[in-house]
Order: sequence, then structure tokens, then C-alpha cells
Amino acid sequence: MFSDEYFMQQALALAQIAFEENEIPVGAVVVYENQIIGKGYNQTIKTNDPTAHAEMLAITAASNFIGSRYLNQCTLYVTLEPCPMCAGACFWAMFKEIVFGANDLKNGFSKLALSEKKIFHPKTKIKQGILAEECKKLMQDFFKKLRN
Amino acid sequence: MFSDEYFMQQALALAQIAFEENEIPVGAVVVYENQIIGKGYNQTIKTNDPTAHAEMLAITAASNFIGSRYLNQCTLYVTLEPCPMCAGACFWAMFKEIVFGANDLKNGFSKLALSEKKIFHPKTKIKQGILAEECKKLMQDFFKKLRN
Repeated sequence: MFSDEYFMQQALALAQIAFEENEIPVGAVVVYENQIIGKGYNQTIKTNDPTAHAEMLAITAASNFIGSRYLNQCTLYVTLEPCPMCAGACFWAMFKEIVFGANDLKNGFSKLALSEKKIFHPKTKIKQGILAEECKKLMQDFFKKLRN
Repeated sequence: MFSDEYFMQQALALAQIAFEENEIPVGAVVVYENQIIGKGYNQTIKTNDPTAHAEMLAITAASNFIGSRYLNQCTLYVTLEPCPMCAGACFWAMFKEIVFGANDLKNGFSKLALSEKKIFHPKTKIKQGILAEECKKLMQDFFKKLRN
């Protein structure tokens, strides 16, 4: 039951809330011992806050739950490739693992053309492409809705 | 009166609060039309939150004040070179200008060995070295205190 796909589905459900609130649909969950301990979805428009990305909110929530600023026993699931801000936050949190869905060639960390090991913590394992099609489709549907 | 040194002094006063609270002493202010509209000092330990850097808190406060997630009419003053997370947040905020004090070769954005234009918004002007000695001395005093 507790597969990468299961937890990415939970992140997708949060992205769907962002979609309905007319925010770019990205969702994230932080998992510790198969339990979700932090959730977030993008809400930069509603909150007037450029830092209110899904990952940032999930990290703050999870750190608060754990009672530590280090999440080195945790995995972050996020529907979209993290941007440099979120990748930098993941560095400080020292995640055990980061799993993301769709690529983001325009605004993801990969736009910096750095090796993953340079922006994330060198001990953090990075996995990508989990439910990538579903994550990408939600983004495409959002931008289609915006244009209409 | 409203010089770079004046506003950096305000950021330093915030860094001093962090110092007294046993947090790495970094302070930041966001300035709009010579008025401070957002303040922050590092408080990652007290809040158990790896995202609670001085710049992040100052950006959230300023955006909330302005009522927009874009701070393109604002200048950020920060006592230490921003880390990649904070530089990424500055990208999204699209600051008019960023002024920092001391360099941070270990954890600052420059560790990524990127041009400033690649991690900050290309329209953002970057200025460094304002009150650098004072900013650096506060950091050195902090680590000396930690060791004793």
C-alpha cells in the first residue's frame, strides 16, 4: 500500500485543491515511517507570498511536527520538479529522499544546469517521474483553463 | 540619511537579536520608498523550521504589507550573502535591488558557482560589501561564543 505512487497520489490530491483555488497546481507531502506528517499546496496568489510553494509549506509543517529542523528520516513527495528556492530549502532540511512527478524545465532547479548533488544535500536520494503523466496533465489543464 | 549603510544598520540590529537568541546572526529588511516594510532575523532553531531565514521572513512580511507577491519596487538589505533558498525566493519576488553585507563562501548562493543573473531575477541589481566588516564580525563573535 505505502508505495511511491500512493504518496504521490496524496500530493496530487493537494495539487487538485490548488487547481480549484486558481493557483498553479502543485502539491507536496512529507512522509516519516509511512505516515504523512506535513502537507502543502501552492498558494502564492491567495496569500500574496512568493515563498508559499507547496514544498515550503510541507517542510514547515513537518519540521514543526517532528520538532527538528532536520528531516533526514523523511521523504518529500512533490508533483512538480522543485524550483531553486524549494531545492535550497530541501538542502537545509537534509531529506533522506525526494520524489517528484513532472519535470519543470522552465522554473525547476534543473534550469540552473547543476548536478543534483550540488543543490540538494549530497546524502539526499532523488527520484523522478512518479505519476509524471498525471502531474503534468494537471498543469496542462490549469494553463488551458487560464487561457479560456 | 536613507543610505545603504543606514538600512544595513537596521538589518544588523535584527541580526543582533538573532545573536542574543543563540541563532546564527543574520538580519534583513525590505525597503520601499525609503520605508522599511518587512523585517526578519534568522530563527531556524527556535521555530524548528529550516525555512525561517531572515530574508524569507522579511519577504513574507513585505509581500503581505504590499499586497502583492512581487517586490519589484523594493530593495532587500541582508547582512549575509543569501543562500540558494533565499536567492530563489528573491527570484520569485523580483526585487529591484538586493544589497548584502558579508560574503558566505560556505553556504551562500555563490557556492553554486553560478552567475548572479542565473539565480536572481535578471532585472535585479546586486550590490555587496555594505558594512561587510561589521556583518562579518557579528558572525565571528557568534561562532566564538558557540565554541566557549
